[in-house]
Amino acid sequence: MCASSVFIPIVPAGGSGTRLWPLSRRSEPKFLLDLTGTGSSLLQQTLRRLEPIADHPPIIVTGAVHRDAVTTQAQAVAAGADRHARILAEPSPKNSMPAIAWAAAVAERIDENAVIGSFAADHLIHDVDGFTATIRAAHRAAELGHLVTIGIEPTYPATGFGYIQEADGTPEQLGAAGARAVARFVEKPDAETAQSFLAAGGFTWNAGMFVARASLILHWLDRLLPQVADAARQLARLGQEHVGPEEIDRIWQGMTSIAIDHALAEPLAAEGAVAMVPARFDWDDVGDFHALSRQLRSARPAAQQGHDDATPAGSAVQQGSGGAGSDVVALGDAPVIADASRASIYSRTGRPVAVVGLEDITVVDTEDVLLVLADDHAQSLSGLVANLQEHGQGHLR
Amino acid sequence: MCASSVFIPIVPAGGSGTRLWPLSRRSEPKFLLDLTGTGSSLLQQTLRRLEPIADHPPIIVTGAVHRDAVTTQAQAVAAGADRHARILAEPSPKNSMPAIAWAAAVAERIDENAVIGSFAADHLIHDVDGFTATIRAAHRAAELGHLVTIGIEPTYPATGFGYIQEADGTPEQLGAAGARAVARFVEKPDAETAQSFLAAGGFTWNAGMFVARASLILHWLDRLLPQVADAARQLARLGQEHVGPEEIDRIWQGMTSIAIDHALAEPLAAEGAVAMVPARFDWDDVGDFHALSRQLRSARPAAQQGHDDATPAGSAVQQGSGGAGSDVVALGDAPVIADASRASIYSRTGRPVAVVGLEDITVVDTEDVLLVLADDHAQSLSGLVANLQEHGQGHLR
Repeated sequence: MCASSVFIPIVPAGGSGTRLWPLSRRSEPKFLLDLTGTGSSLLQQTLRRLEPIADHPPIIVTGAVHRDAVTTQAQAVAAGADRHARILAEPSPKNSMPAIAWAAAVAERIDENAVIGSFAADHLIHDVDGFTATIRAAHRAAELGHLVTIGIEPTYPATGFGYIQEADGTPEQLGAAGARAVARFVEKPDAETAQSFLAAGGFTWNAGMFVARASLILHWLDRLLPQVADAARQLARLGQEHVGPEEIDRIWQGMTSIAIDHALAEPLAAEGAVAMVPARFDWDDVGDFHALSRQLRSARPAAQQGHDDATPAGSAVQQGSGGAGSDVVALGDAPVIADASRASIYSRTGRPVAVVGLEDITVVDTEDVLLVLADDHAQSLSGLVANLQEHGQGHLR
Repeated sequence: MCASSVFIPIVPAGGSGTRLWPLSRRSEPKFLLDLTGTGSSLLQQTLRRLEPIADHPPIIVTGAVHRDAVTTQAQAVAAGADRHARILAEPSPKNSMPAIAWAAAVAERIDENAVIGSFAADHLIHDVDGFTATIRAAHRAAELGHLVTIGIEPTYPATGFGYIQEADGTPEQLGAAGARAVARFVEKPDAETAQSFLAAGGFTWNAGMFVARASLILHWLDRLLPQVADAARQLARLGQEHVGPEEIDRIWQGMTSIAIDHALAEPLAAEGAVAMVPARFDWDDVGDFHALSRQLRSARPAAQQGHDDATPAGSAVQQGSGGAGSDVVALGDAPVIADASRASIYSRTGRPVAVVGLEDITVVDTEDVLLVLADDHAQSLSGLVANLQEHGQGHLR
């Protein structure tokens, strides 16, 4: 069973990723960074991953200040000049719904039957074949008139993700497409609740990916948030290149700042209009340094694991005198002399880094600030970044 | 009872202090550094401390490569042009005995009855009055014909220092001078032995300070190491300024590389010719980063202890968002944002440093290398420095 409608990927490229500060900054957010030493940014890896399923070049929605950087990065990985991404530049951040609505309206003008899929620009997925198969299934389910989300099989009782609860039964047609009916979305739970979800089964992590007909998005917005639907259609009609930024600003200001989860996903789930396709691929939102280090460690050639060795990024990790070091990863070209366990070194300066007697530690060496972080405090970093201003260091954000 | 002979301080300024790497380097050893944020190097603090007891400008013995830096620093703290230190430049390192022998021979030519006192250039002593009183007592004991050492009352069973064991009885005259007879010197003991010393009593730490008539040193050297005594007298007779370096080199090469402890102190103790004056002052050899951090913490104004605050060095330490930080000290002018306990930050770059979720940690930020060290591994740093060459980083030593 093949999908018959065109598929247009949407890539919201937003968020500053404060939990990866000072690698990520407001001026250089996470999606623009090559965090895994592959030579490509997370945005570029996302665009490459979407290439096999895209019937039309992707639509990227990003902040106006990142427009040039996003354009440059996107063009560098486009399969050809006719595959250049369309960039929609938001005058100001308004959460995910306005961005997706705008992109949906643009997609609907490209093809009124278009199915869009929205994929964050800063997540990591390595299994492109599994991803392609999963999204093709979501595409088919979307053609049946559903808002389709992707469910990640939980591997631990995470409290940092929202959950999707499956409905008791799934209509036959939906099931044939590889999808399941969704009962409801659950916001990030506490640890006890998360544990109960895993014990009960039928819960998956919500990775924030949505696949649906563009017209379905706009149809429901007409009913639930008509102002957002109208503004999205106006913006799409204007075409960004034919009007001044003032006109876009004016229309944009009329948008409500709201997440697609609250604006559409939750109300539609209550209406029985949401489906879920289980992910058949690895997924990591690289939410903090702990997650990033885990990624870098798992990416190392198996033969080298547990040794002092070169990393995916090619940085030289050398054993200190103590001989106890292991599982030390480095990103950047700085020589690392480590007598440490599970240390992660991110260098932008190239200066040699010596780490002695430490475990589960992250060192981030940049031109204008140095961070030394205990990995079990990785989540608290955003609080520190939020307070940089009051410490007189707001320029470092 | 006053001493009647002139007192001439000797300051051996050697050793690279690898346990304070990368603050200290071969090119910039510990004694040249302002490690405590006072604006003076350890050498300069040593010279100032000796001023009240010196009847003659001090004699500094240092490596030829450090001659210019030592001269500049010494002149900057001299009480006047007529108090400029005499600098003896060793062509190569030969441990402490040749250096002290040379200085003793120079002192003997200044005054044949001179008493010299040898004090390392890189130890910290804050109580100058107590130091002065102690050395005056040692001066009197030295006039009685003893090699006099200074004993530090042990505060814990240290394994990093040698010990001095008192003799059972002390001759009356020596006791009247404030000194005690010494039975023997003990090299750095293991933990169990150190513990037994503290339990037994009568043991003090050997701080490596020696006070004696210059003629006594040379007399014993004539008997025990005549070659060293001859070379020392030749060097003193030549006067460094009147001959070429080749002549000094030639004579120096004839010296035996040996520590004064083995060359003189131990044999003289066996002869009953060694006395000890108990130190009436604080003392720290600032042997590693743990010791340095302890010094910086104790130097903070009491009202500020346990808070995030300015340090002696005036660096701004600011609380991170976590609110758990305490006892964070910083040396240098880098802003420090700390959500950490007992963290020590040494910065030469001025870059802001953020430390999150860590305890008992030292961060050293220099222009060409970065060190992150667990304080309980402070002693293992010298091993790492010794191996820098094989890591291709020998230039960082």
